[in-house]
Amino acid sequence: MKVNNENYRAIWIEDQTVCMIEQNKLPFEFAVHKCKNVEETCFAIKTMITRGAGSIGAAGGYGMLQVILNSKDGNLEKNLIAAKKQIDSTRPTAVNLSYATQRVLNAAKTSREFAISEAHTVADECAEHGRLIGEHGNKLIKDGFSIETHCNAGWLALVDYGSALAPIYAAHESKKNIFVYVDETRPRSQGARLTAWELNQEGVPHAIIPDNAGAHYMSHGKIDMMIVGADRIAANGDAANKIGTLEKAIAAKYYGIPFYVAAPSSTIDLNTLTGKNIVIEERGEEEVLYFTGQDKKNELHEIRIASPGSGAKNPAFDVTPAELITGIITEQGIIAPNVESIRKMFINDL
Amino acid sequence: MKVNNENYRAIWIEDQTVCMIEQNKLPFEFAVHKCKNVEETCFAIKTMITRGAGSIGAAGGYGMLQVILNSKDGNLEKNLIAAKKQIDSTRPTAVNLSYATQRVLNAAKTSREFAISEAHTVADECAEHGRLIGEHGNKLIKDGFSIETHCNAGWLALVDYGSALAPIYAAHESKKNIFVYVDETRPRSQGARLTAWELNQEGVPHAIIPDNAGAHYMSHGKIDMMIVGADRIAANGDAANKIGTLEKAIAAKYYGIPFYVAAPSSTIDLNTLTGKNIVIEERGEEEVLYFTGQDKKNELHEIRIASPGSGAKNPAFDVTPAELITGIITEQGIIAPNVESIRKMFINDL
Repeated sequence: MKVNNENYRAIWIEDQTVCMIEQNKLPFEFAVHKCKNVEETCFAIKTMITRGAGSIGAAGGYGMLQVILNSKDGNLEKNLIAAKKQIDSTRPTAVNLSYATQRVLNAAKTSREFAISEAHTVADECAEHGRLIGEHGNKLIKDGFSIETHCNAGWLALVDYGSALAPIYAAHESKKNIFVYVDETRPRSQGARLTAWELNQEGVPHAIIPDNAGAHYMSHGKIDMMIVGADRIAANGDAANKIGTLEKAIAAKYYGIPFYVAAPSSTIDLNTLTGKNIVIEERGEEEVLYFTGQDKKNELHEIRIASPGSGAKNPAFDVTPAELITGIITEQGIIAPNVESIRKMFINDL
Repeated sequence: MKVNNENYRAIWIEDQTVCMIEQNKLPFEFAVHKCKNVEETCFAIKTMITRGAGSIGAAGGYGMLQVILNSKDGNLEKNLIAAKKQIDSTRPTAVNLSYATQRVLNAAKTSREFAISEAHTVADECAEHGRLIGEHGNKLIKDGFSIETHCNAGWLALVDYGSALAPIYAAHESKKNIFVYVDETRPRSQGARLTAWELNQEGVPHAIIPDNAGAHYMSHGKIDMMIVGADRIAANGDAANKIGTLEKAIAAKYYGIPFYVAAPSSTIDLNTLTGKNIVIEERGEEEVLYFTGQDKKNELHEIRIASPGSGAKNPAFDVTPAELITGIITEQGIIAPNVESIRKMFINDL
């Protein structure tokens, strides 16, 4: 996707150098961060220079590729096993990392060439799934639609195209007039910071709204549909996503507005039977109580934005029950959020 | 209510000096601002040193009192008419100002003494209504309840006690164990800044939560009831309040959680037939895009917290339809949000 009118992926490799958009500096500064070896790539994943399920999976695959290019045949497998351990430990809860490193390791058992190609495939597949999600989702978007989205499920998180934003980019690309209501997404403000930045770079008309304003615009008929991403989808269609998604889904249901979850099928975890089995990460209160941003002299400050004597609670995700979800947009098509449709998709996939 | 363990009202008068808590400096600094004459009182209302429907009404009444104390019998009425005009224009959309100044002006037609007493009554009545709302609302609160509130409808806004917070203070005072979930209330964060500050001063257990987290806690059975204030209540029970109230009311309904609006009966406007007749103020986008807070050296900074290329929308209020409201807690008791109950209350009042 575009940055300053040039095409970029969130992460790519040039010879032995893994290059990635420095996401910690966005939206205030655009920079490309370069990792010369697997140690530097691990550091970049750990410090969230690259972030998002697909992008860190790609980083993991590329880290393995760096090891392949620097190993002799005799110690290739040994080196890859050590690198996998090192890479997987950078973000221990992210399944995408171990999925990517395992794929490259398995391929290495066939040949060095297949392992190299597999590392590229991990990243390319993620981008291709985003493109397909965009193609399928675009069919739901009519000319003139206003679409609300929550958090950032854009190309920064998924190598290219994104999940929730992919149908929006596809609709914009196909010259439909659309307008995007971007939920700020407190407390980390990924909407105001990353989604708004992405849409601005692509020239998609949009406005940031406080998370509080969603239902208000729905009540005035200003929202035609909602599309959000997902961190994990249970076997029954319940979807865990950024905190606040549930509230939007309830409001959308109340006003009869279609509510779609867009995610690659790898997000669906058949071992998680329902949303009740998903443990919600409770993050530190400082994310709610403090904020970092840029003053008029472009200097960054961390400021306290809440009453000094008070504490905060900070659940990172919530679970939207399947009954509130109109459909799940995957790279394979749009499916209903229920056990039967989800199982059927995976059977077709075999 | 208490500040540093001393009792305060949000606004009061000492001889000819109107004293008020400097609300622009909260929650980072507690200071009392003093106005020696009506000009200074007008300036304080205009610059929001005092804010909130009840508190600015009291300020208006006290401003008239300052004029009375400085006028000779011969030009009292003339001076009061001029002062009323001056005071009313400080916050043109606030009905409480003209209501307060009109009461004092009318009383002056009877006698100077009655006018002086009327100015005191305007403030005292507001505090007493808050106390009664607390008494009625407290009956709804069981020992062990967790209560969610939105924005700041506390004593800072209503001279003393408050509206939404009055039942919470009454429950705490009567030794019930309660816990308050304080919605941050973006974009101006009156929850994180003012409600949290008030509750902290009173020693009421609470935590600030991102506005996004309300439905999550409701879905986990953590919220027993919600109480919010109101800026205007229509004749059919629809209530306009701070943006985000509607979203909470919809979520509360979905989870079967009682949702109460607490407000003095003066907030009910029989001339507004339904919520559809309430025009929603659209405020400047800078409130969403920038934030002011204090760094670790206690220095204030205004920082950009959103992507530099993007704009924002900022509706200040939304309208919660009566069907989502369990009851309205007024100084006269708790009434159902419908035309019949509201009319009956006003007929009893005559």
